[in-house]
Amino acid sequence: MFITFEGIDGCGKSTQLRLLGEYLKEKGFDVLSLREPGGLPLSEKVREILLTSEEKIHPITELLLFEASRSHLVNNTIVPELKAGKAILCDRFFDSTTVYQGYGRGLDLELIHNLNDMATLGITPDLTFFLDLDYEQAMQRCGKREKDRIEQSGRAFYDKLIAGFRELSERFPERIVRISTNDEIENVHGKIVQTVNSKFNIK
Amino acid sequence: MFITFEGIDGCGKSTQLRLLGEYLKEKGFDVLSLREPGGLPLSEKVREILLTSEEKIHPITELLLFEASRSHLVNNTIVPELKAGKAILCDRFFDSTTVYQGYGRGLDLELIHNLNDMATLGITPDLTFFLDLDYEQAMQRCGKREKDRIEQSGRAFYDKLIAGFRELSERFPERIVRISTNDEIENVHGKIVQTVNSKFNIK
Repeated sequence: MFITFEGIDGCGKSTQLRLLGEYLKEKGFDVLSLREPGGLPLSEKVREILLTSEEKIHPITELLLFEASRSHLVNNTIVPELKAGKAILCDRFFDSTTVYQGYGRGLDLELIHNLNDMATLGITPDLTFFLDLDYEQAMQRCGKREKDRIEQSGRAFYDKLIAGFRELSERFPERIVRISTNDEIENVHGKIVQTVNSKFNIK
Repeated sequence: MFITFEGIDGCGKSTQLRLLGEYLKEKGFDVLSLREPGGLPLSEKVREILLTSEEKIHPITELLLFEASRSHLVNNTIVPELKAGKAILCDRFFDSTTVYQGYGRGLDLELIHNLNDMATLGITPDLTFFLDLDYEQAMQRCGKREKDRIEQSGRAFYDKLIAGFRELSERFPERIVRISTNDEIENVHGKIVQTVNSKFNIK
């Protein structure tokens, strides 16, 4: 079982991932929660470069760093842990790259697709939750945190991201389930649980 | 003017790069010497990950990190400095990736070519010196240095690298000049100067 959570910062990904993890543990699953970029010493170092660098970073460089971090996590954690029977929940995966570097920064989507494929060795999540929330509400929710390099990109950038995530969820309706998080946390969690139960025949 | 130096560790790249830099300065060029991976804070951080990480690094991850570091150096230094009229000498460039990750680690050469092209924005050196030296002699020369993660890969790996560099210099004879460094430093320097003078009409 490999489930990913997608959406802009402040949309509720980490909260919903945690709640689903607790639910699955109660149901007897051996749950492993990950985040991208990050999760291993090498990936965390790359994460730090991506989020805190004060140098100007070209979109291609940014793309290559994200893919390097992903490739490391896939090879050293996701592949072996899936084989060992773990249920993996991941905060962001390749859809974020398609949306941030493609729809957001304007890089060629075919190029990104090829790099995603290379970095993941072709592994695709069984299920992806796109947690959909408008820019204002998301910013309100994460307003008290200090913004990182990417979060500082501004309103127009975030509108492109939201449009990108919506388009992706329409292109891959079998895999990507779009859920509005302009709702109570418990209601969103309920919808997620319902989808997971149905997909994996959990009773 | 963009000149790169290639070859295995211990073949004399940094010495010959330094000597050519001194020569070109005497001739009035504004010389900038670089090394790959590295050269800028972000690239140096990636270099440190590549050379010192104790985690197992998949060849694809290694490739993506090298290309990220290269992309950063190309965008933030090589392109603007060439435009500003600098003569750039670089210790390793994309041929090292073709040889180490392709001939050495066995990754697909077409894949590497595409990534090299993406990371360099299509920029190719005017001239590349492949400094050719056998494994034993190279190891003898760098024997006193502590070996990094890649240098520890052993004899069979280095034989593949040397064969790879030789093949590349045969495939691109217009750009890559192969010079044996099993010779006095001054003689090698003399051949390099002769080639540069002829290529760039320096008198």
